Amino acid sequence: MNRDDCLALDAADPLKAFRDEFVLPEGVVYLVGNSLGALPRRTSERVRRAVEQEWGRELVGGWNSAGWYAQPLTTGDRLAPLIGVGPGSVVVGNTTSIAVYQAVAAALRLNPSRNVVVADVTNFPTDNYVLEGLGCEIRDISEGLHDDVAVVLLSEVNYRTGERYDVAEMTARVQAAGALMVWDLCHSVGALEIDVSAADFALGCTYKYLNGGPGAPAFLYVNPRHHEAAENVLSGWYAHAEPFAFEPRFRPADGIRRFTVSTPHVLSFAALEASLDVWERVDLAQVRAKSVQLTSLFVDLVGDALELASPREPERRGSQVSFFHRDGYPVMRALIDRGVHGDFRAPDILRFGFAPLYIRHVDVYDAAQTLLEVLDKELWRDEKYAQRLAVT
Amino acid sequence: MNRDDCLALDAADPLKAFRDEFVLPEGVVYLVGNSLGALPRRTSERVRRAVEQEWGRELVGGWNSAGWYAQPLTTGDRLAPLIGVGPGSVVVGNTTSIAVYQAVAAALRLNPSRNVVVADVTNFPTDNYVLEGLGCEIRDISEGLHDDVAVVLLSEVNYRTGERYDVAEMTARVQAAGALMVWDLCHSVGALEIDVSAADFALGCTYKYLNGGPGAPAFLYVNPRHHEAAENVLSGWYAHAEPFAFEPRFRPADGIRRFTVSTPHVLSFAALEASLDVWERVDLAQVRAKSVQLTSLFVDLVGDALELASPREPERRGSQVSFFHRDGYPVMRALIDRGVHGDFRAPDILRFGFAPLYIRHVDVYDAAQTLLEVLDKELWRDEKYAQRLAVT
Repeated sequence: MNRDDCLALDAADPLKAFRDEFVLPEGVVYLVGNSLGALPRRTSERVRRAVEQEWGRELVGGWNSAGWYAQPLTTGDRLAPLIGVGPGSVVVGNTTSIAVYQAVAAALRLNPSRNVVVADVTNFPTDNYVLEGLGCEIRDISEGLHDDVAVVLLSEVNYRTGERYDVAEMTARVQAAGALMVWDLCHSVGALEIDVSAADFALGCTYKYLNGGPGAPAFLYVNPRHHEAAENVLSGWYAHAEPFAFEPRFRPADGIRRFTVSTPHVLSFAALEASLDVWERVDLAQVRAKSVQLTSLFVDLVGDALELASPREPERRGSQVSFFHRDGYPVMRALIDRGVHGDFRAPDILRFGFAPLYIRHVDVYDAAQTLLEVLDKELWRDEKYAQRLAVT
Repeated sequence: MNRDDCLALDAADPLKAFRDEFVLPEGVVYLVGNSLGALPRRTSERVRRAVEQEWGRELVGGWNSAGWYAQPLTTGDRLAPLIGVGPGSVVVGNTTSIAVYQAVAAALRLNPSRNVVVADVTNFPTDNYVLEGLGCEIRDISEGLHDDVAVVLLSEVNYRTGERYDVAEMTARVQAAGALMVWDLCHSVGALEIDVSAADFALGCTYKYLNGGPGAPAFLYVNPRHHEAAENVLSGWYAHAEPFAFEPRFRPADGIRRFTVSTPHVLSFAALEASLDVWERVDLAQVRAKSVQLTSLFVDLVGDALELASPREPERRGSQVSFFHRDGYPVMRALIDRGVHGDFRAPDILRFGFAPLYIRHVDVYDAAQTLLEVLDKELWRDEKYAQRLAVT
C-alpha cells in the first residue's frame, strides 16, 4: 500500500464529503478525535445563535421558545439511534462521571439483595473512582461473576488499548448471572455500530467521536423496562413529575425524564446539537467499515517498528490504535512537533484515534511515515522533548 | 416621586455605565434578571473565541493552552469575592442541584452522630428534592434546631417572596446547635453583599444576577476548615490527587479541588468568564444600595394596589419584589404584553426582579405605571391572557 493507493481509497470513500464539514488545522494530522473531536463548521453559527438570539433577544422566554427546557430529552432522542436504542430512553446532560453515579446507584437499588459492583481495573479511572463514592464493594472483572454481583460496569472500548468487548455476549452473560449491565460508551459512540438495547443502563460523553465540543454534556440510557422502578438519586427538580408545580415533596416523572437532574447547560447543548445535525446524515455501518480500514492500515504500516498494545484483529478493537513504547512521552512530543497529533497515556502508551468522518487514508499513511521516521532516526531523543507539559 | 425624579436618580447613579455593557431588548423592561440575567455585550465574542480559536484551532491542546483544565478552580477564585470568601475555597461546575447533593452529603459525613437535615419548605424545591435523594430525614426549619440536627440547608433569599435570612445570625445559631450550615445563594449572589465565610458550605447558580447565561455552571464553597476531612461523594477523576496518573484507586486532592467532579462544560464556562469580566469592576455595596432604592421605589409606587408578598423592610429582602394576586397568571401575561417582563409562580405570586447593573429608576417607574394600569383597567381579564403557556 503506497500513498497513491491511499489517495485512491479516499477518492472512493463514501464518507469523504463529511471532511469538509469540519475545521481542521493546516498541516496537522489530528489523531486525537478519540479525546476531543474536531469542530464542525456549523457549530460556531449555532452557538452564536444560542447566545445572541435565544439568550440575548428571547431572554427568559428562551426556555419555551428556543426549546431549552426540553433539551435533555430532545437531544437524547436525537442521540438514541447512535447507540441502537429507541426514543424516550436517553437523557443528555451533566457529565459521564455523574451519569455513572446515577446509573450504578439506580442499578444497585434494582438489585438490592446483592452488594458487589464488578468493574474493570482498566476502565477509564473516573468510572471506578465514582464507584468508590457510592460506597459499594468493588471487584475486578477478572474475579468472575459470582452470585453476590449486583452490577457490572464496563467500557465497550478500553481508553488505553482500544480493546473492545462484545456487548451482546457480555450483556447476556452478566444478566444470566443475575446482575445488571451498565455500559460506558465514551470510546465507542460515533466510532462503532452500537446496540446497547439489551443492556440495563449505558452512558457516555459526546465530545470525542461525536464532536460535541470540550466538556459537552453526557448521555444516559435507561432501558425502558426499568423506567417505572428505577430511582434517580440525583432527584433534582427536572426529574419531578410536575417541575413547575413547585410541590414540596419529590414525585418522579414517568419515563426517562426521571433521570434528568436540573437546568441544562444550554450553550454547551447548542454545540452538541450542531454536531448531531451532521450525525443524523451518517451511516454508522460506513463509519465502522472505514474505521476498520484506517486502523488496520496504520497497524500494517507501522508493522514491527512498535509493539502493538491494541488487539490485532480489527473486530476486537474500537477506532484507536495504541502502541507500547518505554519512552512514549518524548516520542509523542517529537511526532506532534512534526504535525502528527496523537497522545500519550502513562506509563508507556502511544494512542492514535481515527475519526472516520474527517481522517483520510492518506492521513494514516503520512502519520505512519512520520512515526517511522521519528523512530528510525531516534528523533525523540532530542532533549527538548523530555520535559513534561504542566497540567495543573 | 415622579418620572423626572427617577431620571435624575439615574443620572447620578454610580452604576449607570454598566447598563451599556448589556444587550437589552428594545421596548421592554426586563424584571426577570432574578431568573435569567441579561446577555453581557462581551459574551458573544468570548464564546466565539472559545469555539473558533480554543476548540477549533487548539483542539485537544486547549486543555492546557486555553486553561480549560483549571476552569473549575480559576473561575471559582474569580467568583469567591462575590460571596465574601477567599481564593482556594470555591469550585465552579455542574448545577446547583448537584452542588446541594455534594454539600449536604459531605456535611452529613462530617456530623455522623446526627441524621436530620433541616430545610425550609419554602426553599426552591430542587434543594428539598435533592435531600430526598440523599435518604436523610428531612425536617422543616419551623420545627426548630434539636440535638439530632446534622445539617441545615437554607436559601439566603427566598425564590418566591424575596425574603432574606440574616446569614451571620443564622449561621451562628445553627453552629451553636451543633449542626453544619449550608447556604443556597442562587437568589442573592450578584444582588447583595454576601459573606458566607463562617458557613460550612455554600452554593448557587450563576445565571441569575450574575448573567452567566442559560444553564451556566454552579458554584460550591467549602469552608477551608473542612478541606481535609470533607468527602466528595461524586468522586470523579478531577477530584483525584493526580488525575493524570490514572491510578486505579481514588485518592482525594488536597484543598478545594477535591470538590470538583469531572470535565467542565467549557463553552458554558466561557460565557460565565465574560460575565465575571464585568463583575470584577463592580462595587457590591453600590449594587446593594441601588437594589434597595429600586425595590423600595417599586413597593412605594405600587402602594396598596396589590398585597405585598415580600418583606416591607428593605433589609429583610433581596433584590426582588413579589405580590399576591389570585389571578396572577393573566395579570403577568397582560403586563408582558405591554413590555414589562416579570414572572408568575403558582399559585398566586407575581415576581419582579431588579438587577442593579442594568435596571434604572425610570424602568421601575414605567413598570409600576404599567402594572397599575393593568390592574386599574382590569386589562388582564381579556381572555387571551387566560391560557397557560405549555412548558413541557
